[in-house]
Amino acid sequence: MSSNPLNIGMIGYGFMGKAHSNAYARVNHFFPELKLRPVLKALWARNEERARTFADTWGYESVETDWRRLVERSDIDAIDICSPNNTHREIALEAARNGKVILCEKPLARNVAEGEEMVKAVEEAGVPNTVWYNYRRIPAVTLAKQLIDEGRLGRIFHYRAVFLQDWTISPELPQGGEGLWRLDLDAAGSGVTGDLLAHCIDTAIWLNGGIQSVSAMTETFVKERIHNLTGDVEKVGIDDACAFRARFENGSLATFESTRYARGHKALYTFEINGEHASITWDLHDLHRLGYFDHGDDSAVRGWRSIHVTDGDHPYMDHWWVPGLQIGYEHSFVHQVADFLAGLEEDETVSPTFAEALETQKICEAVLESARTRQWVQL
Amino acid sequence: MSSNPLNIGMIGYGFMGKAHSNAYARVNHFFPELKLRPVLKALWARNEERARTFADTWGYESVETDWRRLVERSDIDAIDICSPNNTHREIALEAARNGKVILCEKPLARNVAEGEEMVKAVEEAGVPNTVWYNYRRIPAVTLAKQLIDEGRLGRIFHYRAVFLQDWTISPELPQGGEGLWRLDLDAAGSGVTGDLLAHCIDTAIWLNGGIQSVSAMTETFVKERIHNLTGDVEKVGIDDACAFRARFENGSLATFESTRYARGHKALYTFEINGEHASITWDLHDLHRLGYFDHGDDSAVRGWRSIHVTDGDHPYMDHWWVPGLQIGYEHSFVHQVADFLAGLEEDETVSPTFAEALETQKICEAVLESARTRQWVQL
Amino acid sequence: MSSNPLNIGMIGYGFMGKAHSNAYARVNHFFPELKLRPVLKALWARNEERARTFADTWGYESVETDWRRLVERSDIDAIDICSPNNTHREIALEAARNGKVILCEKPLARNVAEGEEMVKAVEEAGVPNTVWYNYRRIPAVTLAKQLIDEGRLGRIFHYRAVFLQDWTISPELPQGGEGLWRLDLDAAGSGVTGDLLAHCIDTAIWLNGGIQSVSAMTETFVKERIHNLTGDVEKVGIDDACAFRARFENGSLATFESTRYARGHKALYTFEINGEHASITWDLHDLHRLGYFDHGDDSAVRGWRSIHVTDGDHPYMDHWWVPGLQIGYEHSFVHQVADFLAGLEEDETVSPTFAEALETQKICEAVLESARTRQWVQL
Amino acid sequence: MSSNPLNIGMIGYGFMGKAHSNAYARVNHFFPELKLRPVLKALWARNEERARTFADTWGYESVETDWRRLVERSDIDAIDICSPNNTHREIALEAARNGKVILCEKPLARNVAEGEEMVKAVEEAGVPNTVWYNYRRIPAVTLAKQLIDEGRLGRIFHYRAVFLQDWTISPELPQGGEGLWRLDLDAAGSGVTGDLLAHCIDTAIWLNGGIQSVSAMTETFVKERIHNLTGDVEKVGIDDACAFRARFENGSLATFESTRYARGHKALYTFEINGEHASITWDLHDLHRLGYFDHGDDSAVRGWRSIHVTDGDHPYMDHWWVPGLQIGYEHSFVHQVADFLAGLEEDETVSPTFAEALETQKICEAVLESARTRQWVQL
Repeated sequence: MSSNPLNIGMIGYGFMGKAHSNAYARVNHFFPELKLRPVLKALWARNEERARTFADTWGYESVETDWRRLVERSDIDAIDICSPNNTHREIALEAARNGKVILCEKPLARNVAEGEEMVKAVEEAGVPNTVWYNYRRIPAVTLAKQLIDEGRLGRIFHYRAVFLQDWTISPELPQGGEGLWRLDLDAAGSGVTGDLLAHCIDTAIWLNGGIQSVSAMTETFVKERIHNLTGDVEKVGIDDACAFRARFENGSLATFESTRYARGHKALYTFEINGEHASITWDLHDLHRLGYFDHGDDSAVRGWRSIHVTDGDHPYMDHWWVPGLQIGYEHSFVHQVADFLAGLEEDETVSPTFAEALETQKICEAVLESARTRQWVQL
Repeated sequence: MSSNPLNIGMIGYGFMGKAHSNAYARVNHFFPELKLRPVLKALWARNEERARTFADTWGYESVETDWRRLVERSDIDAIDICSPNNTHREIALEAARNGKVILCEKPLARNVAEGEEMVKAVEEAGVPNTVWYNYRRIPAVTLAKQLIDEGRLGRIFHYRAVFLQDWTISPELPQGGEGLWRLDLDAAGSGVTGDLLAHCIDTAIWLNGGIQSVSAMTETFVKERIHNLTGDVEKVGIDDACAFRARFENGSLATFESTRYARGHKALYTFEINGEHASITWDLHDLHRLGYFDHGDDSAVRGWRSIHVTDGDHPYMDHWWVPGLQIGYEHSFVHQVADFLAGLEEDETVSPTFAEALETQKICEAVLESARTRQWVQL
Repeated sequence: MSSNPLNIGMIGYGFMGKAHSNAYARVNHFFPELKLRPVLKALWARNEERARTFADTWGYESVETDWRRLVERSDIDAIDICSPNNTHREIALEAARNGKVILCEKPLARNVAEGEEMVKAVEEAGVPNTVWYNYRRIPAVTLAKQLIDEGRLGRIFHYRAVFLQDWTISPELPQGGEGLWRLDLDAAGSGVTGDLLAHCIDTAIWLNGGIQSVSAMTETFVKERIHNLTGDVEKVGIDDACAFRARFENGSLATFESTRYARGHKALYTFEINGEHASITWDLHDLHRLGYFDHGDDSAVRGWRSIHVTDGDHPYMDHWWVPGLQIGYEHSFVHQVADFLAGLEEDETVSPTFAEALETQKICEAVLESARTRQWVQL
Repeated sequence: MSSNPLNIGMIGYGFMGKAHSNAYARVNHFFPELKLRPVLKALWARNEERARTFADTWGYESVETDWRRLVERSDIDAIDICSPNNTHREIALEAARNGKVILCEKPLARNVAEGEEMVKAVEEAGVPNTVWYNYRRIPAVTLAKQLIDEGRLGRIFHYRAVFLQDWTISPELPQGGEGLWRLDLDAAGSGVTGDLLAHCIDTAIWLNGGIQSVSAMTETFVKERIHNLTGDVEKVGIDDACAFRARFENGSLATFESTRYARGHKALYTFEINGEHASITWDLHDLHRLGYFDHGDDSAVRGWRSIHVTDGDHPYMDHWWVPGLQIGYEHSFVHQVADFLAGLEEDETVSPTFAEALETQKICEAVLESARTRQWVQL
């Protein structure tokens, strides 16, 4: 096993805390060429009992209930921030001040102002940093990036993406607190825009370049919900749904939409990109496939190809099983850790950094502003 | 065979002239309960030789090269307008003045002003009229309407539709003239908005009610093309692509998009509607299927259903073959004729009328205005 | 319209009588280059009232209730046999004796002995003849044939086909008589073997060459049913299900299966052929698509292609609409008539003839023999 | 972390050695309720260097190059046999003699005689044992089992399964030795029958009960290949393809087929089961979905459901992520370990045992005998 430890201090133990812990635990098994080895050194959680339970399950060596202590510990090399969005800024600033490597869950922050402080902090501290926009490293999505970079699509005309869920349709669902902070404006910063569209935007600008302008609308279908932290019925501040159009710098047009009110869809993130010569589609619900249409094929046998992205010459797949056997969602985190560790070993920046994630944050903020003002917003 | 003739005077012999002629020729074979029988009495085309060839193929009894003569002939009961959009108004006005039943290809007109004159004309003349928004009568689409009317979806949150094509990507393609008038602003009135989005809008307001406001963008990717009528390179006036958002009167949000630059899609008209209890999807490329998700199903076996709309208890299907055997695109026209004839027999209005098609026209115009002004437009 | 009439005498007015009548009525509209024009001259049915109703709907000029009279009429050029299988032999023999062109529904006969007499009769009489194995002329299936003939698949290893239905699962369903003669051994000759597997076999030997040997099993799940002709509960003599393996002359292996007890499938005829370089799949429930996998594609973007067989350069499709707009089941009959008429015009044999259909009959008989003897049967 | 260690001695480090090691490493992270904790104590491989590399990657505490030593070590609780089929018997017998828990890769053995010895050995020794027919524990497959056990399908009429691959089409591929022992008759015992159909049979008898009789054919397309162990061109002894029919004890009919010559398929294991009331389909290439057709649905909205098996109330899925996020192939091994450990804790037998796997072995042997004799074989 790799001999150089990278001691991880984990902030949070929820859905993402589990996904990241798993990535650290697995990366050296499947990427044995790495010299760095993440060590689950310490876990922070407000509630000590829960912290101990999670630490025990995952093998964290110690727990802290004061995150400042964790961030200051000299035996910690890297801080992974998996706590709610309203905590990202403060923890990241402290971690940077302490010279820690920082891995932060997406979105970077609740807004651009917070994000700018964070970028400044890591850049001034000179600490390696990344934001967990993990979908870039689903092999089919990485393959899409390769095909585009190879010029197979030619001039791009259109980009479209949706992220559809249906889990908040019931008005009985409360907002806020454990497991539901994403519905609380103060904790989350926004609703589907920061939670779901941020993923769509990150992929889009990675694949198709910068966005020039946006025009958006948002809606909150259920106006009031009980708040778990106060017990009162309170106004819902987040956007339940958001749709926006964009113009990219390369002249292509885009439509984006996200909602938590699309009955029948759990986590249907799909994107499509149409170029002069070829088009690509992808769908998170069948994440191991990539749709590809190549106009260069003989006309009689031209058709959308369903690429089963499980072969050794597909991105990352030589690290896993044999052709035909699919991997799943969690593997995208393993890939991000693997790439990030390789970057640390070579002292190279690995995308997406805080600075890159700030671009997504700016677009999210422009989208929300456009929805409020009912005007196009330039970036 | 049905004994009461309805003598048809057909204006035009292009793609739609063929589709409608086929509908008239077949309707009594498959809907033998009808008493009215369309008779292909006369065909108009500017070019006499082409008119004779088409008339000979389809069995039209006579041809005219002056449409006014056709519209005035006393042996003609109904005028079917399949000529380019810029001719609809004048022909419809003359036909109404002559007391003819009128069937007009979509879109109703190039703009609202023309459409309003046409509605006024048919209403004052009291002549039965319809516009060929044929997709309503694809059995899967009609089934969607039934399911919505039965209340299976509950409160509607979202509607989304796209109509994607790829046939005008080449800059070498000319505009205007025979077969290409849809690319000529003067003949067509608009680009994809009137040609393709008009279909999407017609279906949407039929299924989901009125639209309150829209916000749009358009693009013309190829700015100049040779014009077939002049031989000169001329500015392209139509919209190659158009995307818009809408708010429906029932509070639901919508996104619409159409383009002729989506490589890999020939005529991919899809719509999806998300309700509180159920959702529906449909796709013109597999028009004999309907996607249906019912949240009321047992949770362990809940999933999107692919309904193969070929059974005797599906709309219109008892008129055709046996379960499992699909019909195609052209049958939607047969169904529209069948319903229209039944309406004539019973002296009942059959949807969509000119007046209903004017609603779609208004939305198209609002969309184009919004794209121009970059502002939301109220309806 | 084409000037040379081919006067049709139609035997039967059921499902196939309707499908064929439609083909005759439409062929000159969509294949205007044909000089021959089918004329619906006379219809035979045992029941005069039903005959008149059908004749009236479809425009048959006259009706006969004695098929011998029809077959002898000098104003009839061609006899189309759509009556139950147990009538094929006798009618065909009389029609041949009278020098008529003969178009016979599949299967050719109830057994090889009958089929051999029929082949002998048409060959001695020298009359043009065909059997309605219409699936060959679904454009996607014809395209499969073209791809195979071009050598794109290379050496063939495997062929597999199923034809799955679910319409006879209820033990309450009677056998025999109007609409149910396919369940009556005497009328049909066999169950799914002659009715459904005959289609699969016809396609298979057309695409992949001769079959050398077969090994089969059959089953009758519901052993007794009320017989509509007697009113008594009688033993069911037909095969409800049949599965067989085969070896082709080219060395490839095959599996075939058919049943009327596969819940969820209306008419799911699928085939797949695997070659050294490429593979093909097809499915009657989405008959306008062809699956194609080409191992010659770049490995990173290799995948099954879904070819939407609606373009002008796909077989037959230049006669219909525009790319993206699908045709349906009934069009296969129009194509067969079109090809058959073109053959008559040029005095050329058009496949499949009676002689070719006899090959399929021999394989069906071998399959039933193998099921009975539980031994491989050589052909 | 769970406090009771179960010390694992792993035999082999190939594809399955990796899959099982991963399962041991992950099971306590995702099934924290387990009290037993697998410890990767020792690894055997013939080649010491490779053994050390693998042990280092996965954290095995020690290596052995003599498997007998490993099996005798008192600090080892359980032996996991991942070496080629020809080694299973001997190692299992020794492991049983030493009182070890045994987990054996499938197929149990090369033939029934070996399998019977192994069953006898574990039963006499009274050691817990299992065979890694892991597909039973893919959540969608487990869900199929639940639906069948709940009686949702009613009387079963049909079962069909295929396992199609395309990796041995090239005649240049050698047989035997590292990574290719599956092509060597002596090492593997058979070709696709034991390697792939064994999986299909195990699932089938688990879902649908015992098989009464089989009728099979096999083929070896490439007759000679270079043998890696000798360097000589040698006769290929394995079956490249095998198709068989079966009758189940419940009266249903089945077809099974497997090949490594189906171009376009990497590991396409599919099964379908048709019952009186409902049908089920599954496909390894999209293993997180289950097809389900329920005839009890309202007829107008009846259709095949695509169940996205990612929800908390689907088997095993409450242990992983959130609805909509899929797991992959490797998780089936984690589930098998989890169930096996739970069984050990409760002293309960967990299926499939050696004895159950022997049933599959007997069917495989009957299939091969039938192919040889060209006769039906009773079980």
